[in-house]
Amino acid sequence: MRFEVLKTDPGSGARRGRLLLPHGEVQTPVFLPVGTQATVKTLTPAELEQAGAEMLVCNTYHLYLRPGHERIRALGGLHEFMGWARPILTDSGGFQVYSLAALTRVTDQGAEFRSHVDGSRQMFTPESVVEVQAAMGADIAMCLDECPAYPVSRDRAEQALVRTSLWAGRCREAWLGSGAAEATTLFGIAQGATYPDLRERSAAELIELDLPGYAIGGLCLGEPSDLTYELVSTVNALLPIERPRYLMGAGYPEDIIATVGRGVDMFDCVLPTRNGRTGTAFTSAGRLVIKNARHLDDRAPLDPDCQCYTCRRFSRAYLRHLFIVGEALGPRLLTLHNVWFFQNLMRRLRSAIETGEFAEWSGSFLDRYRSVRQTSPTIE
Amino acid sequence: MRFEVLKTDPGSGARRGRLLLPHGEVQTPVFLPVGTQATVKTLTPAELEQAGAEMLVCNTYHLYLRPGHERIRALGGLHEFMGWARPILTDSGGFQVYSLAALTRVTDQGAEFRSHVDGSRQMFTPESVVEVQAAMGADIAMCLDECPAYPVSRDRAEQALVRTSLWAGRCREAWLGSGAAEATTLFGIAQGATYPDLRERSAAELIELDLPGYAIGGLCLGEPSDLTYELVSTVNALLPIERPRYLMGAGYPEDIIATVGRGVDMFDCVLPTRNGRTGTAFTSAGRLVIKNARHLDDRAPLDPDCQCYTCRRFSRAYLRHLFIVGEALGPRLLTLHNVWFFQNLMRRLRSAIETGEFAEWSGSFLDRYRSVRQTSPTIE
Repeated sequence: MRFEVLKTDPGSGARRGRLLLPHGEVQTPVFLPVGTQATVKTLTPAELEQAGAEMLVCNTYHLYLRPGHERIRALGGLHEFMGWARPILTDSGGFQVYSLAALTRVTDQGAEFRSHVDGSRQMFTPESVVEVQAAMGADIAMCLDECPAYPVSRDRAEQALVRTSLWAGRCREAWLGSGAAEATTLFGIAQGATYPDLRERSAAELIELDLPGYAIGGLCLGEPSDLTYELVSTVNALLPIERPRYLMGAGYPEDIIATVGRGVDMFDCVLPTRNGRTGTAFTSAGRLVIKNARHLDDRAPLDPDCQCYTCRRFSRAYLRHLFIVGEALGPRLLTLHNVWFFQNLMRRLRSAIETGEFAEWSGSFLDRYRSVRQTSPTIE
Repeated sequence: MRFEVLKTDPGSGARRGRLLLPHGEVQTPVFLPVGTQATVKTLTPAELEQAGAEMLVCNTYHLYLRPGHERIRALGGLHEFMGWARPILTDSGGFQVYSLAALTRVTDQGAEFRSHVDGSRQMFTPESVVEVQAAMGADIAMCLDECPAYPVSRDRAEQALVRTSLWAGRCREAWLGSGAAEATTLFGIAQGATYPDLRERSAAELIELDLPGYAIGGLCLGEPSDLTYELVSTVNALLPIERPRYLMGAGYPEDIIATVGRGVDMFDCVLPTRNGRTGTAFTSAGRLVIKNARHLDDRAPLDPDCQCYTCRRFSRAYLRHLFIVGEALGPRLLTLHNVWFFQNLMRRLRSAIETGEFAEWSGSFLDRYRSVRQTSPTIE
């Protein structure tokens, strides 16, 4: 992997860069659609490419359980398996072990859990998650981390950060010894919950390991936005400028813009896909709840500024009908639109950094994006 | 509407023709994918066009209830509403009233029922279903008929056929008086259950009305195939050769081939879409159940002879994974393939009639199509 910062915004911490990965080049700041089970829900790889997605994130926990990393390897790797030729980042699966599985025990050795699929006993160690991700052929693998829910006590947060640093060191050893370090690069994950000094300590301990990239984990879990932004600033002030920075799980346009301005390069979130499935569209004039009765006879597209297939072909009235009668095409078309919306957002944001107009662009984007929400109670 | 028989097969009753409708030309024999609620489940209009679909069938009962025919009219008609520019046939809604709704009473006046959506009292009359279909702008509207389930007594079958003829006459009057006869043409539906003499009487009574096209209803409801084929022959022997003939609800490739050979021009069926959603693919070597364990490590496409996106891009192993983990892309990709399979089947069948090789082609298609089913218990 190579990372280049092409331009830095004079008025903020925003950076315009590019990541060179085994499966291609990625322009940053980048937003990664989430393809948990080796599919971005409802969409084809061709549609994701057309929307401009340059990298996806897939989920180690899910794919380890089904269909299994050895099966994926035997079938030609994750890219071949899911028909996606561009870069893939896999998260370590730690977050899902803590949130989805029946967790039986976490020790310094690793996390023991029961599969949510069949109840079988499983264990993730720093070494095993690196092996799983390398077997699947991820362009970027993530270290195993311990990620406490929000809110969490200082003691518990410190314990988790100490273990996360310990595991990061072991992930790095396993990675360097795996023979896969050319095909798969490794990112560390900074923890420390909402305690600035713990965040600094976590960042410092990871930097010691000299990893190719750094993620900020354990944020966007319900804490106030201002606190998120401050903690991002705290961590990014320490991280080396020549390495990519990835804020895990951030997805609201406001949060993306605010944290790009604080030096974040990479994002992933289920927001465009999950909200699309449940009937909320992101538009340049704010969020739109398609089932709302106001759209019954509405011949307008979701977003007149959008060039996606959904907006070029279908009215809100038709999309509402699909959701009201429970037709699968509805979630599909809204997901498609939302993925386009986020890719367009990132494209415009990158271009604004290039031309040195990031602050102006952000202001006018957010003014418009917030305008309808402020005046209408029918927009979520 | 205009219908032209371009070629008749010398060795069978098969005809190669074309239908000229307000929204375009349709090559017959034709298979209509089913878009019940103004959407062919999981697919976009663009995908249907790419698959070669030239006409769809939508459902009057469902669209009358939601979003309502007046709303569809106000939104520019059904074609505009659903983004499908090619011809649309709407069925009359009779079949759904008998099968889906809580039917309260059928009299000569019409069918009273309660909506399956909200329990509201509703009534379909011959006049109202013509009005509803014309309001939506269907290219072909169907008469209201009474369609008893299989099996049914002779007396009940006769009663239903008498009422169906009475209603067909009233549908015709309403249609001629509607001012919509240019935009929307009208087909009658022959009933008579499994009684050859009743089938003949029904056909004769409809022919008296001199309708632009004729459908055979009330078949493919569970009766033996040989009986279906015989009854189709009985009716088609009477129907005027210059009018299109539509066998409602027939969808198995065997049935399509057998009844094309007996002079049928049009087909519709939920089979490709419903089976696609539930994990059964139609292939040139027979039906394939994707969840079957034999596909766990199967890198082959569903059908090596198919050029659809699903077959060009994805392995059976991946498609199986999608179904096993419950991902929406699975039903979507199998539906897409099945729609292609049926459109390809019709394309090849038309071309075989053109070159005078219908019998040879049918034989070799069916030999291959049946080959795997005969040798393997794992194919449904």
